[in-house]
Amino acid sequence: MSEPATNDTAQKETEPKEQKNGEQNGEEEKDKSQPAVKEMKAIVLTGFGGLKSVKVLKRPEPQLQEGEVLIRVKACGLNFPDLMLRQGVIDNPPKTKAPFVLGFECAGEVEAVGEGVTDIRVGDRVAALSESKAWAELVAVPAKFVYKIPAKMSFEDAAAITMNYVVAYALLFEIGNLKSDQTVLVHSVGGGVGQAVVQLAKTVGGVKLIGTASKGKHESIKDVAHLLDHSTDYVQEIKKEFPDGIDLVLDCLCGDDVNKGYTLLKPMGRYVLYGASKLTTGETKSLFSLAKFWWQVDKVSPMKLFDENKTLSGFNLRQLLYAQGRDQYVRDLVDRIYKLYSEGQIKPVVDSTWAFEDIPDAMQKMHDRKNVGKIILDPAKEPIPRPPEEVVEKKRKGSAKSSKENKEKDNKENNEENKDNKESKEEAKAGGDSGEKAPENGTDK
Amino acid sequence: MSEPATNDTAQKETEPKEQKNGEQNGEEEKDKSQPAVKEMKAIVLTGFGGLKSVKVLKRPEPQLQEGEVLIRVKACGLNFPDLMLRQGVIDNPPKTKAPFVLGFECAGEVEAVGEGVTDIRVGDRVAALSESKAWAELVAVPAKFVYKIPAKMSFEDAAAITMNYVVAYALLFEIGNLKSDQTVLVHSVGGGVGQAVVQLAKTVGGVKLIGTASKGKHESIKDVAHLLDHSTDYVQEIKKEFPDGIDLVLDCLCGDDVNKGYTLLKPMGRYVLYGASKLTTGETKSLFSLAKFWWQVDKVSPMKLFDENKTLSGFNLRQLLYAQGRDQYVRDLVDRIYKLYSEGQIKPVVDSTWAFEDIPDAMQKMHDRKNVGKIILDPAKEPIPRPPEEVVEKKRKGSAKSSKENKEKDNKENNEENKDNKESKEEAKAGGDSGEKAPENGTDK
Repeated sequence: MSEPATNDTAQKETEPKEQKNGEQNGEEEKDKSQPAVKEMKAIVLTGFGGLKSVKVLKRPEPQLQEGEVLIRVKACGLNFPDLMLRQGVIDNPPKTKAPFVLGFECAGEVEAVGEGVTDIRVGDRVAALSESKAWAELVAVPAKFVYKIPAKMSFEDAAAITMNYVVAYALLFEIGNLKSDQTVLVHSVGGGVGQAVVQLAKTVGGVKLIGTASKGKHESIKDVAHLLDHSTDYVQEIKKEFPDGIDLVLDCLCGDDVNKGYTLLKPMGRYVLYGASKLTTGETKSLFSLAKFWWQVDKVSPMKLFDENKTLSGFNLRQLLYAQGRDQYVRDLVDRIYKLYSEGQIKPVVDSTWAFEDIPDAMQKMHDRKNVGKIILDPAKEPIPRPPEEVVEKKRKGSAKSSKENKEKDNKENNEENKDNKESKEEAKAGGDSGEKAPENGTDK
Repeated sequence: MSEPATNDTAQKETEPKEQKNGEQNGEEEKDKSQPAVKEMKAIVLTGFGGLKSVKVLKRPEPQLQEGEVLIRVKACGLNFPDLMLRQGVIDNPPKTKAPFVLGFECAGEVEAVGEGVTDIRVGDRVAALSESKAWAELVAVPAKFVYKIPAKMSFEDAAAITMNYVVAYALLFEIGNLKSDQTVLVHSVGGGVGQAVVQLAKTVGGVKLIGTASKGKHESIKDVAHLLDHSTDYVQEIKKEFPDGIDLVLDCLCGDDVNKGYTLLKPMGRYVLYGASKLTTGETKSLFSLAKFWWQVDKVSPMKLFDENKTLSGFNLRQLLYAQGRDQYVRDLVDRIYKLYSEGQIKPVVDSTWAFEDIPDAMQKMHDRKNVGKIILDPAKEPIPRPPEEVVEKKRKGSAKSSKENKEKDNKENNEENKDNKESKEEAKAGGDSGEKAPENGTDK
């Protein structure tokens, strides 16, 4: 599955200051003399930056509000926006709200329902697309973002399928209007959405898939007719193979891949931008690179689209759900996806399942594009055993400092980590684990 | 149906110089001593500009080439691109090729087939989307642009349905991916494409149509829930009625309506530009207005589409067929449309049928947006009787001049007409027919 984590930042610990600020229960700071608030384990973002910004902490259990559903979490989904949020590339929840509990996706059992919730009952097995807060033992989510899962769907599958397949379904069928025998280019085809696209495309006859992925994982990727290495001149390779162009480009990278994707379209072709994962690579950490990243994306005149018979689209599930109020639209997609699952037409590919405490390794794996399929977090799973000296070392350092000092240290480490990012590689400095990862690393950039 | 034409430029005449230059038969100038070339009646564009550029002339019958189908034309479709071509707004066929026979659409009986044509036989009833040349008694069209029509489809219906419904079908279902209960804004809903959109939208349950059309013809337009006058602040009216936005905007106007249309979209909404009919109004004749027209159309970043969950598309059937080689794609759409017709699900709305000689009136009607549904030209129809003095006057003038002089006169008239266009109204100067049209005119701008 994966190599043992050597990063020592995610040990269980409590951090009283943050606990008091907790936005989980939506309440003001409580008097310590009141009955002790029940606590739970959660993955908390304490600042913005590298892996060290993410900690497993004790947090107060959420208090159920009107219209909400309280879920006992059994499995969580790791998604690319989690990495972008951690790095501060996306700003929702806003940076000012840190520390907060991370996580947009989970599945579990309903423990309680708030006033006004009618469709969901205690004991129901559900998935949720929560606006953060999902990576905890308990989460309270507005009912409009909670979906009952089919009887035969495991919690792991539910956490693997819900977000990625909603995105993939929207890309292929809602925006892409995919028809049989069409050609589709999918970037990062090994990722969670990429693998969902592969499965959903198979439900349509004769679709030819072209996928980009790092060379190292080509062998692990199934059902993609044309696998290309993104670091090569993939545009020329595709033009050679498909001189008439392709029907649909699904781009989660952004940057200069936007213009490249547009160029590859045949007349009546569609380009869809649904992510900007290039923003999380080290090379865009400098202001110059960041500006270049934005400059590279050409604005397009509708009159050019008219001349060329082309379509440009954007898809952003988080905006759709949390800013644009289209939760019913998303619910319809979830229904269709669960139906396909129940019919046996799709089965999510799970790359690996991790304990909360191993979140740095899980994130690093996604950042390095080493996963094939979904990365799952399981709050009940035992963490990978660490070399004892590291734990001791960590405890020794940690106990000698106040929480304030700890925070300063974290910030310093994060800054150092940002420097590392300039080398196009995000590593947990403290761990020095590059040696262990070397066999996989060679071909991954 | 319509008022008698008073424009005197479209009388049958022969113009020997143009006849010799004819690109219809694809041959070099012939020696007059050879057997006389058979002639036919055709609507010829002699230059670019106003209605006087269009003449009914005798032309040599086309000679069939390999891969072509010779059609005895029974009905022709008038489409907006014909007006744009006449005014020189679109350049295909290129201006240098004038004079040439106009017309992108016709239906008739197959009189002969060229070498290599296998699917179509002599006697077949067909429609054709020809790259010009369709408005003649005979036309030779590459077989790839010729479609056999259902047994029960009249030639008039075939000429009314083929181009408009292909466009409408592509807009609604191929690009728009229309679903039940969605809202659609259609500009110029009274036009040929607009009326096709209305009929095709009815095949989907619960679609709410919003249409713009000049107030004067609102009464004649059926099945459109929300009819608005384009000259009012339609954006505000729509926002009031549909505060969440609309799902699909179909825009044949261009200019500032592009940005307005984009603004009206709800998240997951789509805007499609499929024409630029505003370019043919008098107001864009000045260079300043023309520049303003282009400036008004905002370029859009794919990243904005990503944030807003929106789609921008262009559709241009002529480009698709004649420049981009997607004739098989269009053929599939034609098949689907003819099937819907055979099933009785659609029935084209024909506004009026005109003799070739009455083409100026037919074009004027479309230009003034006075038609509801398709305008058809019938080569066998008798022209509307003209006041005898005008015919006499015309003949007297014409016979006194050489063909070269005639051409100079035409150019001069065209220039004068362009001046008229600056007054936002295109009229046949010689006819002085504004009095007769006054009752309809009042609300049309």
